[in-house]
Amino acid sequence: MNSKTKKAVILLSGGLDSATVLAMAKNQGFDCYAVSFDYSQKHIAELTSAKKIASYFNILEHKHKIFTINLSQFGGSALTDDNLDIPTSGIVEDNIPITYVPARNTIMLSIALGWAEVLGCYDIFYGANSVDYSGYPDCRPEYVKSFEIMANLATKSGVEGNKIIIHTPIIDLTKGQIIAKGLELGVDYSLTTSCYKADELGRACGVCDSCRIRKQGFIDAKVLDVTKYQ
Amino acid sequence: MNSKTKKAVILLSGGLDSATVLAMAKNQGFDCYAVSFDYSQKHIAELTSAKKIASYFNILEHKHKIFTINLSQFGGSALTDDNLDIPTSGIVEDNIPITYVPARNTIMLSIALGWAEVLGCYDIFYGANSVDYSGYPDCRPEYVKSFEIMANLATKSGVEGNKIIIHTPIIDLTKGQIIAKGLELGVDYSLTTSCYKADELGRACGVCDSCRIRKQGFIDAKVLDVTKYQ
Repeated sequence: MNSKTKKAVILLSGGLDSATVLAMAKNQGFDCYAVSFDYSQKHIAELTSAKKIASYFNILEHKHKIFTINLSQFGGSALTDDNLDIPTSGIVEDNIPITYVPARNTIMLSIALGWAEVLGCYDIFYGANSVDYSGYPDCRPEYVKSFEIMANLATKSGVEGNKIIIHTPIIDLTKGQIIAKGLELGVDYSLTTSCYKADELGRACGVCDSCRIRKQGFIDAKVLDVTKYQ
Repeated sequence: MNSKTKKAVILLSGGLDSATVLAMAKNQGFDCYAVSFDYSQKHIAELTSAKKIASYFNILEHKHKIFTINLSQFGGSALTDDNLDIPTSGIVEDNIPITYVPARNTIMLSIALGWAEVLGCYDIFYGANSVDYSGYPDCRPEYVKSFEIMANLATKSGVEGNKIIIHTPIIDLTKGQIIAKGLELGVDYSLTTSCYKADELGRACGVCDSCRIRKQGFIDAKVLDVTKYQ
């Protein structure tokens, strides 16, 4: 690795989007550090996938950190609260979905920001997507921009004049376009988990909102769906 | 408690500043929820103090949450990294102190934001102070403003038109003024821990930057310093 290679921190959930974003960051020549979160989501298949993806992209162990933060302490989302069911009807509501986790992405970006600062790194990659998940406030471009402004005021890096950039390379792509891009860059989507209700073997339910969007993505990209279903 | 009483989430570190801010929020009539952090700081005296202060102000147990987040995973601060010593010389450097923890306050505010959203609460109290700690980028008014803007774009609360406010009632006060205000509101400062190197009995070292600023605060306020020293 060239010592002048720029470092980047990538939020790696273990899903399809963040795996693609990691491939894009690598393709842009960044020295990639990945960060994943055990935030008391209902299954750990996602984290197992994150580890597999990091390994697939030759991210050494010390360059992939998993932070534990117990967001079930306040609940309020079907992903973290045992009293709330994950919807499987496929009905799309007008309002923000129950799978939205309050401030989760802000918390994750903040932790990535802290690690980036220690690494002397000014580039953070975030797989937000505003097309399919338009119901999530923290996936919109205006949110990302505001986080970036805040990040530059919050940190020593920012104050010292280094411009911190939150990269969101797939924010305007459809799921089909994301998959096409990822395949072009060699992503093995069989390693990724998008399902909100994956079983202990990491197999997808096929009926939650995340599964439905992913399925349609493979159809739109006109490629084989490599997802393992229950 | 009147059902119309507005809720507030208060960042409660266990130090002098946040104890004062809690007293101010209570005095303004808010129904107070407190949040503290075990972020792998080098001693737990601070958290013991946070619990004592919450109890002193009659915050019920379910209204005081302690989040664990291991910031020593990335280090980079004398407060979290065993390889970095906490300065005790009293020499004030021009640059940002080594006790600055990268993105810590942003991470804490983000978690407070998530809990506030679940509680249906739009008021967050943060004991930032830009007078004594002018070296910390995340204690400046411009940072707080940018966090507030971001918070309103990040959340369901914000999108639905509820204005989230980050209150910083002591940001422009000197330590002496903060102590005077707190005493007026009944704060027992013997319960608080400011020291970066407190011992297992919670006694202060008296020579770290935080101790020096606190000591001077009691002198400026012309009141007895109730701190227990080693």
